[in-house]
Amino acid sequence: MNVRLAKNSGFCFGVKRAINIALEAAEKYDDIVTLGPIIHNPQMVKNLKEQGIRNVMKISEINKRPTIIRSHGIKKDVFEKLKTEHIEIINATCPYVSKTQQYAEQLCNEGYQLVILGDKDHPEVNALQSYSNKKVIIVSDPKELPGNHFNKIGVISQTTRTIEDLKDLVSSLIPKCRELKVMNTICNATSVRQSATIKLAKESDLMIVIGGKNSSNTKMLARICSKIIETHHIEVAEEIGKEWFNNKCDIGLTAGASTPDWIIVEVYNKISECLGDIIMKASSIADIPGFKEKK
Amino acid sequence: MNVRLAKNSGFCFGVKRAINIALEAAEKYDDIVTLGPIIHNPQMVKNLKEQGIRNVMKISEINKRPTIIRSHGIKKDVFEKLKTEHIEIINATCPYVSKTQQYAEQLCNEGYQLVILGDKDHPEVNALQSYSNKKVIIVSDPKELPGNHFNKIGVISQTTRTIEDLKDLVSSLIPKCRELKVMNTICNATSVRQSATIKLAKESDLMIVIGGKNSSNTKMLARICSKIIETHHIEVAEEIGKEWFNNKCDIGLTAGASTPDWIIVEVYNKISECLGDIIMKASSIADIPGFKEKK
Repeated sequence: MNVRLAKNSGFCFGVKRAINIALEAAEKYDDIVTLGPIIHNPQMVKNLKEQGIRNVMKISEINKRPTIIRSHGIKKDVFEKLKTEHIEIINATCPYVSKTQQYAEQLCNEGYQLVILGDKDHPEVNALQSYSNKKVIIVSDPKELPGNHFNKIGVISQTTRTIEDLKDLVSSLIPKCRELKVMNTICNATSVRQSATIKLAKESDLMIVIGGKNSSNTKMLARICSKIIETHHIEVAEEIGKEWFNNKCDIGLTAGASTPDWIIVEVYNKISECLGDIIMKASSIADIPGFKEKK
Repeated sequence: MNVRLAKNSGFCFGVKRAINIALEAAEKYDDIVTLGPIIHNPQMVKNLKEQGIRNVMKISEINKRPTIIRSHGIKKDVFEKLKTEHIEIINATCPYVSKTQQYAEQLCNEGYQLVILGDKDHPEVNALQSYSNKKVIIVSDPKELPGNHFNKIGVISQTTRTIEDLKDLVSSLIPKCRELKVMNTICNATSVRQSATIKLAKESDLMIVIGGKNSSNTKMLARICSKIIETHHIEVAEEIGKEWFNNKCDIGLTAGASTPDWIIVEVYNKISECLGDIIMKASSIADIPGFKEKK
């Protein structure tokens, strides 16, 4: 039996940076909050709470405390409000998300009808949308596009979507406008992780995707894998069912950008425990040593 | 037996305009030339020659005569040279082609790597290319794209390509750049004619595509039809083979943007002659009366 971890699993640059910013801020300030969960991993958010970084959901709950801006960013008007109220802002927005917010504003100022590829209920997308002062079209599938024809359409993507989804959307927009400007704002780490995950899923009998149930990029990994092979999306090791491994030879693991290393290690150990003596660890040297080093 | 003509067959706005400009100029000037064939229809070019409008291929052959610029446009440097030599220019470039030339120049000035969807040997594309002062990528199929990654890619299309080809190209370019700007320069008349032709081809047992063998948009119609049903591309009625109609019920006709009405009429009459008594003319009232009016 082989258990392999997809390359590029776990924390991305933006998440690592946000966590570091939060931990540094926690050393400086006694009482500090994040406005909304800093990343979409409930276990990590709980861990930060234990280190004195609380999560509040509304401005009214901030009570003048220094406030960390979550990695997904916040709405422009909320940001302005924090400034007006002289609240100390510690901005942990992923730089790629900040850039996407700038593109949203720029496309809108240049007269493009803004179309966002993304989940309309996701905080990153809500924040992006707020940077346009006109009506924004948000779709997760080209089928959701309106029938109208536009003069100029500008496209950005939630940073964690797939390149295939962006290609499909752009292709559908071509007959709908005279001019189309597309900013490919899909984060490179996301693309690379998705590619590595697809590769591993194609070589596996079962995929286990580890990460927050509220994490968009983790859910996307699960969606991609489930099109290829039997897939389980879990947040913690306790969710694993021993029966999943019956008649399976190659088990693939992958983890979202907000999944901390310690959870990946716990999942790996839990699988070892389930499989007992029959396990043959590490089929890919390139993958597993890195995984072990993370311990 | 039904013989039907696809809607929107024959002369487009740009071709009609070019011919009118040429004929008006011929009334004004005794000796006048076009630099390259004014449209891609040898029969029409011959007809114009009989009306005193000669076709020359090189600037050196102009001999200071007033010069009509062909509907497909000419290279920027050739245009400049005519001006420098104080040659009277009668510009019959299709306004949609002129607009596409402007886009080529604009995209280039804005720092985009220009990609043209088109036939690299076609005069329209040669002229478009000349409006960029940097290296241009010209492809008729996404497979011809280079492997490089670019910061900014700007796309225009030869006005007579299909929207499906543009969609395919744009889709392939998405992973190749950070920013993509697409000007949909496919002429609306081209799109509408292609759609009407596809519709008719799907309802026919045989398609006859009428127009210049050197006409890009006519060749495109033939390519589209041949994917659906048996298709013959002809320039003149004499090319028709009586045996084409054996065991056929529904004959579809379509004609390119540079095909004059009189050739369509000749083809229609030739088919009637081939089919003799068994013909049932006009299955679609909407199409055929218009076709007859053209006589």
